[in-house]
Amino acid sequence: MRYLMTFSYDGTNYNGYQKQPNKNTIQDNIESNLSKIFNTKITISASGRTDKGVHALNQKAHFDAKDINIAKLRKSLNKLINSDIYIKDIKKVNDDFHARFNVLEKEYIYRINLGEYNPMDRNYIYQYNNNLDISKMKKASKYFIGTHNFKSLTKASKDIDSYERTIYSIKFKKKNNILEITFKGNGFLRYMVRNMVGLLIEIGSNKKEVASVLSIMEAGNRSLSGITAPANGLYLKNVKY
Amino acid sequence: MRYLMTFSYDGTNYNGYQKQPNKNTIQDNIESNLSKIFNTKITISASGRTDKGVHALNQKAHFDAKDINIAKLRKSLNKLINSDIYIKDIKKVNDDFHARFNVLEKEYIYRINLGEYNPMDRNYIYQYNNNLDISKMKKASKYFIGTHNFKSLTKASKDIDSYERTIYSIKFKKKNNILEITFKGNGFLRYMVRNMVGLLIEIGSNKKEVASVLSIMEAGNRSLSGITAPANGLYLKNVKY
Repeated sequence: MRYLMTFSYDGTNYNGYQKQPNKNTIQDNIESNLSKIFNTKITISASGRTDKGVHALNQKAHFDAKDINIAKLRKSLNKLINSDIYIKDIKKVNDDFHARFNVLEKEYIYRINLGEYNPMDRNYIYQYNNNLDISKMKKASKYFIGTHNFKSLTKASKDIDSYERTIYSIKFKKKNNILEITFKGNGFLRYMVRNMVGLLIEIGSNKKEVASVLSIMEAGNRSLSGITAPANGLYLKNVKY
Repeated sequence: MRYLMTFSYDGTNYNGYQKQPNKNTIQDNIESNLSKIFNTKITISASGRTDKGVHALNQKAHFDAKDINIAKLRKSLNKLINSDIYIKDIKKVNDDFHARFNVLEKEYIYRINLGEYNPMDRNYIYQYNNNLDISKMKKASKYFIGTHNFKSLTKASKDIDSYERTIYSIKFKKKNNILEITFKGNGFLRYMVRNMVGLLIEIGSNKKEVASVLSIMEAGNRSLSGITAPANGLYLKNVKY
């Protein structure tokens, strides 16, 4: 039986989502407790990794196990896992469903505090604590929309087949000094959202020109594009299949 | 020179505000760093303590030290203290000003999540994760308004001269499944807000009658009044002089 889980987590105290030797990860905590419940080794396959300190509101992962009551499974698993991870839903899916390969759209949000430092939000909203020219950032963000080579905005690696990704939309919302930027696309490369946000912040603070996005993207070279926004402001919001 | 500080803190990782031997407290962290800056032992006097896990948006404290530039002092202090404490303002006040004795009004807020468990908010909003009958809670809260003996709603102690306090107002606001209750009064006894909230939750979940508040208050006996709401939902919001 194949199951699909939807779960949220506070990434603050983990070395990222993905299992690594001798590291505290979200995947490890869920897998080890699922394995306890089923009394056999269970491996989960997520829609993708999230980096150290990044949060998720609706991460998705599938796994295979024997047929059991899903309401009871969710309850037992939530009792066993850490309190900073929460299983929102478990459903049964077809055997050929794959949480990563079947992704049609991913949505990320990035939160920036333009107002006064807030200790309660220090792990959940990037504490920029300064003004940004949002109209410039909006203009600059238009260059990201569509299908482009995003090599300038990720960490290059031999394992990457293609740096081409399609961004469907980038939306800005400001409320009580919190700027929230929502990115939708068919997929995102490693650090890509944080590098886009970093570049937008440099434009919004007049360190770079709006049009610089164009030349940076064309160069295909990470070293030109500027800062990587901190992990704490980033949330994987939704995955569509 | 007497100074008055306004500061916010995330109480999650402290044994409360007030200095205690061999305990990690907010007062300790601020005092030890102020003492470094002034190169002499500085003691701060707050508007009152907050308990373990309770947060503050605008706590106030005064201290005496030599005359220096307050903008620079605030900047230096914020660099030295922990990132979960933030000095919002420092101003000079009269020598006879006292942060505790001069209090005219205190405002506390208590936040309850009536919706789904949210791991990001686990230390900042009480995760009740269930419905409450807010109209019953509103009715019950009227019994608290005015000047009353609150012995049933605090921890009795020989050190307390009077259990009489005046509550000016209790307001309810619900937004996106977060219930926020705001209490204003001339002062609050230990655990008093959390005990009022606990009683209101028992009424909102039909475990106690609305009118039970009256008999509980009249009894002057803590054992009758029910649960103490958890510390994580409580914020000292404002102190007026």
